[in-house]
Amino acid sequence: MKIYGEPYQTIWQLDETTIQVIDQRVLPFRFKIFDLKTAKDVHHAIHDMVVRGAPLIGVAASYGMYLAMVHAKNNDNWKEELRNAGNYLKSARPTAVNLAYAVDQQLYKLVGTDDYEQAKNLSLEVANNLRTKEIENCRLIGEHGFPLIEKIARKKQGKPVNILTHCNAGWLACIDYGTATAPIYNAYDKGIKVHVWVDETRPRNQGARLTAWELQQHGVPHTVIPDNTGGLLMQKGMVDMVIVGSDRTSARGDVANKIGTYLKALAAKENNLPFYVALPLSSIDRNIYDGVNEIPIEQRSENEIRYIEGYDEGQIRKVRITPAKSPVANYGFDVTPADYVKALITEKGLCKPDETEIKKLFGDEGK
Amino acid sequence: MKIYGEPYQTIWQLDETTIQVIDQRVLPFRFKIFDLKTAKDVHHAIHDMVVRGAPLIGVAASYGMYLAMVHAKNNDNWKEELRNAGNYLKSARPTAVNLAYAVDQQLYKLVGTDDYEQAKNLSLEVANNLRTKEIENCRLIGEHGFPLIEKIARKKQGKPVNILTHCNAGWLACIDYGTATAPIYNAYDKGIKVHVWVDETRPRNQGARLTAWELQQHGVPHTVIPDNTGGLLMQKGMVDMVIVGSDRTSARGDVANKIGTYLKALAAKENNLPFYVALPLSSIDRNIYDGVNEIPIEQRSENEIRYIEGYDEGQIRKVRITPAKSPVANYGFDVTPADYVKALITEKGLCKPDETEIKKLFGDEGK
Repeated sequence: MKIYGEPYQTIWQLDETTIQVIDQRVLPFRFKIFDLKTAKDVHHAIHDMVVRGAPLIGVAASYGMYLAMVHAKNNDNWKEELRNAGNYLKSARPTAVNLAYAVDQQLYKLVGTDDYEQAKNLSLEVANNLRTKEIENCRLIGEHGFPLIEKIARKKQGKPVNILTHCNAGWLACIDYGTATAPIYNAYDKGIKVHVWVDETRPRNQGARLTAWELQQHGVPHTVIPDNTGGLLMQKGMVDMVIVGSDRTSARGDVANKIGTYLKALAAKENNLPFYVALPLSSIDRNIYDGVNEIPIEQRSENEIRYIEGYDEGQIRKVRITPAKSPVANYGFDVTPADYVKALITEKGLCKPDETEIKKLFGDEGK
Repeated sequence: MKIYGEPYQTIWQLDETTIQVIDQRVLPFRFKIFDLKTAKDVHHAIHDMVVRGAPLIGVAASYGMYLAMVHAKNNDNWKEELRNAGNYLKSARPTAVNLAYAVDQQLYKLVGTDDYEQAKNLSLEVANNLRTKEIENCRLIGEHGFPLIEKIARKKQGKPVNILTHCNAGWLACIDYGTATAPIYNAYDKGIKVHVWVDETRPRNQGARLTAWELQQHGVPHTVIPDNTGGLLMQKGMVDMVIVGSDRTSARGDVANKIGTYLKALAAKENNLPFYVALPLSSIDRNIYDGVNEIPIEQRSENEIRYIEGYDEGQIRKVRITPAKSPVANYGFDVTPADYVKALITEKGLCKPDETEIKKLFGDEGK
């Protein structure tokens, strides 16, 4: 997607020993490229949230394994070094499933080779392939989601299609296109008039900081709103559809996503508006059935509630916004029951949030 | 209610020429008393939100009329001067109905007197009486709301009653007790175990800044949460009831209140939790029936979304929290349809949100 008119992705190889990423800690106040030269740099980038979003974390980790190979001493121990690098990278954010997957994929692919040079080259190939696959998944989510927007656009006869989204399931969380944003960019690039209501998404404000910025950079009309606003907009007919992403989706289609998603799903249902969830199949956790009762809810740092980061006089500053002595609570996400979800938008097409339909998508209907 | 262990109210007379208020612009970061010595001071205090909340604005305006009398030239023109002061005070915040009411009440009461001294004394009496009446209304709302909390407390056998509230319908918006908080303070003071989930209430954060502070000062257990959190808490059985205030309620019980209230009402209904609205009868607008379609929604300054005020290194600072070029929208409140409201808690008792029941409360059942 575009930044200052130029096409960008969130992670790319600069040269044999350098991977570059967009530093997402300082967006939207500054645009900064961040160099990754060692597995340690990658660990730091993941841990410190220079990069965030499950697909991006996975790809960064895969390149982290490649960088570990680049700097491995060319001797009998490179496999040992690689395993150590893998454990170290996995510890950067223990709950990110894509991170562990990407690391294990590298180990699995390289373990059959004994030649260091060959393994190093293979490692780069594995990372590049994962990157390509993530981009392609998002592109396909965009293609499959596009007709949903187009259909509404036809009905509205030239008036913009109003889409509400929560948090950042944008290309900044992925490599390109995004998940929830993929159908939006797809429609926009095909000349459909769209307008996005961007929930600011307290407490970390990923909507206001990242989604708004990436839409603005690509030229997509949008408006930032407090998370409290969506209900009113839906009641007043100012929203045509909701598209969000998902952190984890259960086997029957219950959707864990950023805290506050559930409230928007309730309002969408109440106002007869379609509520879509865009996600790669890899984020469906088929070991979990009842999402509301089985998916554990992460509690995050209290300081994310007490303090907020903003821009003042050329500096990024944190200010305290609660009384010094008031307790606070920071639940990271909530679970929207499948009943509230009109359809899942995946790289393999649309799917009803229902165990049988999801099974079909995985191609194991008979199992 | 208590501040640093001492009982306070939001407005009081210090001496013949001085009214004092708590400066709510700097809470919770500083506790500051603000002097009102002239009608101009009162205009400034209302306009600049040193005082806010409908009941408090009304009482402040009434004292503003008294201060206008104090400084009126003792001649034939005091009535003219008082009328000018009235118009001037009304312009401080044009949409506040209590403001116009309080000013007109003073004019109505004083116009029958020709003697300046007598009128000045009467003016103070009118202001004092309005203040007393507002306190009494809130006290009664507390008494009538108390049994709702007590009943849940009995069921929970010593476990705290979890009450969720949105925005500040606390004593800081009134003179004492508050509206939504009145039943809570009443229960707490009677030894019932309560715990309040305080929605931070974006964009102006009245929950985090004012409700949390006033509860903390009075000693009421509470936790500040992002507005996104309430749905999850209700789903998980961590909320027993919701109590909010109201800016304006229609003749059939549709409730206009701070933006985001509607989303909490939806979640309460979905999770079979009682959703109460505490309000003085004066805020029921009997000229409006269908609140959702008839109550106009105020759009407020974009800067309330773009910037947030917080505390850093001993200073109250504003920082920007959105991309410089992203449009924003700031809708001030939403309307919760009567169907979602379990009961109104008023100074005359509980009432179903229903035209006939509300008429009975006003004592004009037969009309």
